[in-house]
Formats: sequence, C-alpha cells, structure tokens
Amino acid sequence: MSRATPQTATAETMSRQQREISVSEFFLKNRHLLGFDSPRKALLTAVKEAVDNSLDACEEAGILPEISVEITQTGEKRFRMDVTDNGPGVVRQQVPRIFAKLLYGSKFHRLRMSRGQQGIGISAAGMYGQLTTGAATRILSRISKGKMAHHIEVQIDTRKNTPTILKDVELDWRPAFPRPAPDGAFGIPEASPHGTSVTIEMEAQYIRGKLSVDEFLRQCLVANPHLQLHYRINLLNKEVDAEGQAATPLVEGQWISWMRLAHQLPVPPVEIKPHPHGVELGMLMQMLRDTESRTLRGALSEDFSRVSSPTALDICTRAGLDPKANPRRIAQRDIEGLFKAVNETKLMRPPTDCLSPIGEELIAGGLAKEIQAEFCTAVTRDPTVYRGNPFQVEVGLAYAKAGENEGLSGDDPVRVLRFANRVPLLYMGGACAITKAISGVNWKNYGLAQPRGSVPVGPAVIMVHIASVWVPFTSESKEAIAHYPEIIREITFCVQECGRRLAVHLSRRNRENEVERKRSYIEKYIPHLAHGLKDILDLPGKEEDRVVQILRKMLERSHLET
Amino acid sequence: MSRATPQTATAETMSRQQREISVSEFFLKNRHLLGFDSPRKALLTAVKEAVDNSLDACEEAGILPEISVEITQTGEKRFRMDVTDNGPGVVRQQVPRIFAKLLYGSKFHRLRMSRGQQGIGISAAGMYGQLTTGAATRILSRISKGKMAHHIEVQIDTRKNTPTILKDVELDWRPAFPRPAPDGAFGIPEASPHGTSVTIEMEAQYIRGKLSVDEFLRQCLVANPHLQLHYRINLLNKEVDAEGQAATPLVEGQWISWMRLAHQLPVPPVEIKPHPHGVELGMLMQMLRDTESRTLRGALSEDFSRVSSPTALDICTRAGLDPKANPRRIAQRDIEGLFKAVNETKLMRPPTDCLSPIGEELIAGGLAKEIQAEFCTAVTRDPTVYRGNPFQVEVGLAYAKAGENEGLSGDDPVRVLRFANRVPLLYMGGACAITKAISGVNWKNYGLAQPRGSVPVGPAVIMVHIASVWVPFTSESKEAIAHYPEIIREITFCVQECGRRLAVHLSRRNRENEVERKRSYIEKYIPHLAHGLKDILDLPGKEEDRVVQILRKMLERSHLET
Repeated sequence: MSRATPQTATAETMSRQQREISVSEFFLKNRHLLGFDSPRKALLTAVKEAVDNSLDACEEAGILPEISVEITQTGEKRFRMDVTDNGPGVVRQQVPRIFAKLLYGSKFHRLRMSRGQQGIGISAAGMYGQLTTGAATRILSRISKGKMAHHIEVQIDTRKNTPTILKDVELDWRPAFPRPAPDGAFGIPEASPHGTSVTIEMEAQYIRGKLSVDEFLRQCLVANPHLQLHYRINLLNKEVDAEGQAATPLVEGQWISWMRLAHQLPVPPVEIKPHPHGVELGMLMQMLRDTESRTLRGALSEDFSRVSSPTALDICTRAGLDPKANPRRIAQRDIEGLFKAVNETKLMRPPTDCLSPIGEELIAGGLAKEIQAEFCTAVTRDPTVYRGNPFQVEVGLAYAKAGENEGLSGDDPVRVLRFANRVPLLYMGGACAITKAISGVNWKNYGLAQPRGSVPVGPAVIMVHIASVWVPFTSESKEAIAHYPEIIREITFCVQECGRRLAVHLSRRNRENEVERKRSYIEKYIPHLAHGLKDILDLPGKEEDRVVQILRKMLERSHLET
Repeated sequence: MSRATPQTATAETMSRQQREISVSEFFLKNRHLLGFDSPRKALLTAVKEAVDNSLDACEEAGILPEISVEITQTGEKRFRMDVTDNGPGVVRQQVPRIFAKLLYGSKFHRLRMSRGQQGIGISAAGMYGQLTTGAATRILSRISKGKMAHHIEVQIDTRKNTPTILKDVELDWRPAFPRPAPDGAFGIPEASPHGTSVTIEMEAQYIRGKLSVDEFLRQCLVANPHLQLHYRINLLNKEVDAEGQAATPLVEGQWISWMRLAHQLPVPPVEIKPHPHGVELGMLMQMLRDTESRTLRGALSEDFSRVSSPTALDICTRAGLDPKANPRRIAQRDIEGLFKAVNETKLMRPPTDCLSPIGEELIAGGLAKEIQAEFCTAVTRDPTVYRGNPFQVEVGLAYAKAGENEGLSGDDPVRVLRFANRVPLLYMGGACAITKAISGVNWKNYGLAQPRGSVPVGPAVIMVHIASVWVPFTSESKEAIAHYPEIIREITFCVQECGRRLAVHLSRRNRENEVERKRSYIEKYIPHLAHGLKDILDLPGKEEDRVVQILRKMLERSHLET
C-alpha cells in the first residue's frame, strides 16, 4: 500500500475527502439495483427497458406498436441486443441524453400511467454494456418519411452523468419488420416510415426458462394484445436451458412472429394534476413557490386536481388566509394552516382516466392462451388512491383442465404472473406486494390447499396487474412492488373475489362429480334391481324393461334435484 | 382537467417534454427506497443514519465514540430527533453539502470498510423532514476547543439537489453528555471540546418492539462495544406498543446510559486500491484515462493493488503492449487484450486490512448479553472477495438455557441478528442474503427442527456480521444484502461451522441427559435390588449396605464409560 489513510483524521483532513458522487457512478457501483447483477438478468433487463420504451412511445404517438427483438451472441459471454420499433422516432438533439444520461426523461414529472417512469432504464443498459464490453450504444432513428434518419453512437461519461457522442451521421434508414410469405416462410420485410432501433452489446448469458427473455416477451403479449412482435436469437453454440443441459435451439436464426390480436390501441391515459390529499406539506410549499398563478385561490384551483374555484375559496377561508394573497409569499406557519385546511376539506377522488387497465375480457383471453382451463375468471376493480396516486388492480384466475397442461401440476404452487403498468415482472417475486397479498388470502376457503403463509397449491394460474400513475417499486430495477398497505389491500380484495368465484366453480364441479359417481354406480345396478323386482313381484318378462325405464327416470329426477 | 395531454404526440412534441430529473426529486418520490415509507420506519432510518455517521467520524478521527440520542414528540405524528456526538466535528463549508445534498460524501470513492457508503443517508433524512414538516435540518458543530461552534440550518432545493442555507451563525457550544452522579441519578453533564449535533423534525411514529429505535440502539451496542450511548424519549402521551396497546413508558423523560465495554477502538481499516481481478473492462478503460502515471506499466503498478512493477511488465508483455506506452492513448482493442492479460495473470488476493471484523470473542460476549445461554460459539472466517471487493463473514450462535429467557420459545424460529459493517439491519430480513444462507443450511443435521426452506426452529440466537469495503444492499435504505453467490456461500460455510459445534453440544447434552435419566432411575431401585439380593442370597443385614455401595459403584463406572 503506497498511500494508506492516516490513522487519525481531523475535521480538516476529512473535509478534503468530501466530494460529489455522480448518479452514474452511484448506479455503476450499485448496478444490481438496476437489474444488472448477473449476466442472465442483464440481458433480460436490457430487452425489457428497450421494449418498454418502444411501447410507451408508440402508444403516446397513437401508433399500433410493431417491435422486433434480436439477440445475437458475439462471444462466449457476450451478446448484442437489437430492438427496433415503428414508433414516432426520437429527434436528433434528444438522442444522446435519452440514451446516455441517467435520470433524464419525459415520464417522471407527469402523473399518467406509463411503463417507464424513472428516466434510468435504457441509459443504464447502455452503461452496463459500456462497462462490460467497452462498446457504445448505437441508435438509429427516423421521425418521418420526409426526414433522414440519424445514426448516433453514445457512451456515458460516468464521472459527470453526461453523454459522450462518438458518431452522429445522417442516413437513409427505415425500420423493417419480417413479413410471412404466403407459403408460411418469411417474405420481404416491410419498412415503416418512422421508428427507432437501439443496439447494445454487453456481457450476458442466454438461458431459457421462467426468467428468460423468451418468457418476458411471451408475458408481454398477454398484457399487450395490440403488440405485433418479432423475435430472433442467433447463437454461436447451442444454448443451455435452466438445468444446464444443452437444448435444441427452438428459434435460432429464424424469426418468430406474433401477429397482434387487438387492432385498437388501449384508451390513451390522460395526464392529471396532483390531488391535494396526496400532497405532503413540503410539496405544498414547493408548489406554492413554483405556481404561475398570482393568487392563492388561483394556485389552488389551477395546480391541483379536484379543486374548483369555489372550493379553493372555501379552503382559504377555512385556513384564515386571504384568497388574493401572493402564493409565493405565504409564511411557513400559514402554509401549515393551509395544509390542515386542505386535508379537512372533502374533495372528489382524483380522476382515473390517467389509468389504462387491460380489462376483464382481455385478461381472460390472455389466460386462455396460457393454459387449457376448465374455469377462467377476471376482475378489474375500481381505481383507488395511495399517497394521492390513483391506481387500479386487475386479477385473472384460470384453473387448469386435468391432464391437458404440461408443467402445471396440482402439487405445485399456483403460477403467479405479475404485471405493473402492462410490464411483466419476472424477478423478486418474494419481495412483491402481489405475492404478499396472494399469500395472505385464506385459500382453503376457496378450495385450494395452502402451506402456511405461502401462495396456494393447485393447477392454476393467477395473473395480477396493477396500473398506476406511479408504481412504487422496491428498487430501480422495477421487479417487485413495495408493500404499501393500500395496494396490498386492493390486490387482496380483487384476488378474494376471483377466489370466491373459483370456490363456486369447484364446489359445483365436485357436487356434479359426486352425483355423476353415484349415478353411474346406481345405473350399473338398475338391470339387476329390475331383474330382482321382476322375480319378487312375479312380473312378466316384458315388464322388466318397463321397470328399468321407471328406475332410470327416478334417477334422472333425483339428479336434477341435487 | 384543463390541460389534457394531446391524444397523439409526435417526436417533436415528445422531445419538448424531456427533462432532467434531479436525484433529490427522484428519491423524494421514491422515498421508500431510502427507508422512509412509513412514519415508524422513518424515525428508525433517521436515527440510524445519524448514528452511523457519528460512529464513522469518531473512528476515523481516532476518538472513542460517545453519542446521545434524544427523541421528542412535538405533535400527534411529529417527532424531533437530536443526535449528538463527541466526534471531530465538520468544517463549516462542508456542513451544507454533507447534510443537504444527496450523493455527496467521502466514503463512496474509497475502498475501506465504513458504515456509510453512499453519501445519501443523513441528507435524505433531512429531506424527509422537510417534506413532511417543512422544517430545516439544524446542525451544531465544533471542531476544536480553540474554534467557535457553528449553528447552521439547511434545506435541500430538491429541483437542483443543492443546499439552501437558512441560518449560519457562530456560537459557543459544546456537545454535552449526561453523567451518572455517585447516588446513581444523573449528575452534571460532561462536555466534549468537539463534536456535532444534528436535529431533524419529521412526521414519525414511535412504537416499541423488534423494529424500534430502542432495538436498533441495543443491537448497535452488541456490534460496537466501544460505544458509550445515552438515550432519552420524551413523549406527549403514552406511546403504544406493537400491538397498539398503551404501555408504561420505560425511559420517558429519563436518560438511560450504556457505558462502553471495550476501551479501545477497533483496529482502523486501511484504504486499498482496486484489485485488478475485480475491475471490469469499462472500469479499466476509465482508470487508464484517469491515471497520473505516464507509462502503462506505471499505471498498472501504481493504481491497482497487488500489482508490482515486475508483474506490470509481465502483464504488458502478455498483452503484447509497450510497457512505456502512454496509458491514456491505448486503443480500445488493445485495452481488451490488456484486460484479458490481467485476468490470466495470477495475483495475490486483495489486502484485507481494509476490513475491521468484530472478532469471535466480542461476538460471543455480545450474545452472552442477549440471552442466558447454555451454549455459545462464534466463528470469524478469513476474508475473501466478490467482484474485487474484500469481505469477511462472522457468525455467532447462542443456544438458550431452558426457562431462563423470556420471549425465546423453542417452538418459534430462531432469532436472527443481521449486521453489515457493524450496523444492525432490522427490516427486510426476507430479502437478505443472510436469511437465505441460514435457510439454505440443513439444520436437522445439527439438531434443530426446520420447516422446508425456512430458518430453523429453536431457542437460539444467530448473529451474522458481514464486513466489506462495499456491502451490496438491495436498496438505498441499506436493510438487506443482495444475493451475491460469493457472499451467500461464505455465510453458509460460517453458519455451518457454528451448526456443527452446536450439534456436538446438543448430542453431548442429550447423551448426558439420557445417562442422567437412566442413572436416577436405577439409583431409585438400588435399595430394593439390594434388599431382594439379600433375601435371595440370604445375606446378613449389614451386607445389604455393602451391596448398595457395590451397585452404586458399578453404576458410576458404567456412567463414565458411556
């Protein structure tokens, strides 16, 4: 050690070591917080961030999304990811910051449901690629037919969290997607006049299974039936599956495509203003400092949702403040009074058109594609609010037909599919509010076995979707939902409703099975019974048939009465 | 809604919504990531951040730490926290940034074990206070007898992540700590010539129990026997315990003090340089760009640990590079070759004096204070490495004496105490590598019952400490350790060693109990046996006593032989 720290420091020597930490440095060191803790997960996270961005951009621009995902192995532990969409494209000046600056984006500051919300994801994926391979993020983007595309390559200067542009040229590029030819093979690719393609090379590992890119994309289609998706993997060698055994590549080098099932975009969510009951004291102070209104009354009614001008006047009166006061000059003590008055005022709940649920019909449809079900139900609850943020829970439950679903055993825990704002969550199930809510329900009431404190056991799939203007994730990697009591409660209610429906189905089915069993049992003995009766009552031979008929009718009647 | 988002956006309209997100805004919205998701946890997190900083500062300055923690209720859901230490103090210019700027500090950029590592904690606590009460963070600090103290009040401008100074005055303040008078009551407080006091008012809740400030401080003392601690709670009403029942306040309004047990500081950890095998390609590129050395060989030997000048030459040769080359001008392809060469070169493991373990003796001593144990053991393993970061695991295990430990039942899961760099971790046990490692051990081998996949059941306490230059936490709130395989493996080995020792103890104890049971059983019948023998053999009366003696001797011999 040439420069050991002195054994004892003083306030002065310690002060010289203080310095700013850039957010990029912070997350580079803590990259497991962003989902880049293992090579396998890194590949999934990168694909997820790119696909999320593409879907958000398409929906915001009113374009039915078409996306291609291509994963190409470039070395033993190296992969290149290319994700291309038919979205609106990104204007040239914004490309470097969107793709190579953490905490930069359009979605953080608005209250509206979207997949991205942090302004971290895709830049983090690029930063991880840069760290592990030294390669830059390559972006191709075209915003319209009439304009040329841009080819830009960027890296992050992690010391400053700013983009470094390595290449910036115009070219005549258009995003193209494979099209199946009439004979079933893929024909001429079709180009879109606009769209974006992002390429990142990184240290990664491709493994099939429950935590794979394949599974993520499959679940994406369940929650996004309006998505048209193409997927291709190009491997150097045969990949290995989760058990480490070499598997025959299913799709290697071949595009597989899923055509969209819904030909309409979901209803676009609308941006809302903050609801006063979800605003904390410090935030209220900040909002009054920042308002463009000249009066307190105006600030209250214009900057918040559900505050009309008369309500604003009412709040001012209640707080003993002049409604014409300059909102930027209210003393802290008065703001505390205002805060109290706001929270004592009855207000409508926040508007909920900021949310875009999947809907019961499409959830049931999605589940039907997941398994061969003998019973399937879905519930979309009314929106509600946590910390002022509107959110909405949807649950689907499908119970498998016996013997028709490979890999779905009645002795294993039910399969739980978790979604937040239409994005599948694959990792960290144990830490998620969804798992906690499902485990907290007493499933024995609904006819499923359940180990204490765990998810129930049975041949079923439970899908839970939470849609919110701000999903509180347990980490920046957005893999699990934090345990807010309001959210757990809503999920619980929704899951219980599905559970009750399942219980009705199972008890009817069990009863029917029981009756059927008895019936077939009795039916088996009717001829013997008739024969006996004939002997006892000394009936003529042809009466025996009539007795059989009468007995059968009695049996049927009793069956209907059960 | 007055300003609904247009139904369809274009690349241009979308680009106008893009903006930078300040790290303060990000964590304000995501304050659950920092441990401020509930009022109860907020109080604990704030105390923890302040105490961690005080301990780090004292140890760095070679001062035996003395800290007072005072919690004062100021409203129904409002508390003020005052944490005062006898540390080296903070120079005036640094106060605003240390206490009101996220991602600012001295510990992030160096490789040395410390409690703080992010430069977020105490500023985040102040930001939470500001958000929920509008109050500023107040700091009093004095760096020496000869200089006046500073009284500074700061808030964070969350839009910019910069401090706003509300007050900045000099005064003649010194930190003072309660001293017990000879009659046992507290006498005249004793002042230190230097130290820091931080005061934050916040929305909070005080509840006793496993997740309380009380418990945190108690565990702090276990891992920091050199700490002298004073604690006082001032409540407006009686507080309620975890079950919501009013409890008699134990310490309300009265200082309770714990005198230090160890009168020497732990061996101060030494800062190290990065180990080449833990440096990723992108980091190597950055380090070569930033080096102060003029030659590649110099950069390798001076900026990394365990690379001597001959080894550096060897690496250059292996990579086919000129050792005299300018390290800032090496082509990317060549750096890739260098990276490969570095990883193919055998190097000593990183030095481990950057770590400061608690030690087996003090761990066993700490556990002995926790429970009345019939068996107690501790193991400190040799340091090892994950991602180039040295770390070290210590485990203590204490098995309770039957009937002498309230609240420790043989039917409940064992109590697990988790520590990272001497800081107790109370929340998120389920997500922690420590819990995962303990649950993964087969405890039936060691004589404890264990539900499948859970921690074992029994009247025992297991304490696990991980010391590292960089502890990978699952979130910024630093409550649980991420599941790095290397870390889980080390904890597992260490826990297994303690388990084996427990098994030896339990099997010896069971054998002794069994023998004791047999012995007392036989002893009970010796007189009858002797009497019977006397009758059968027709011995004289006094022979009966001799037979009893002989039988007792035989019994004792057989006992020794067991």
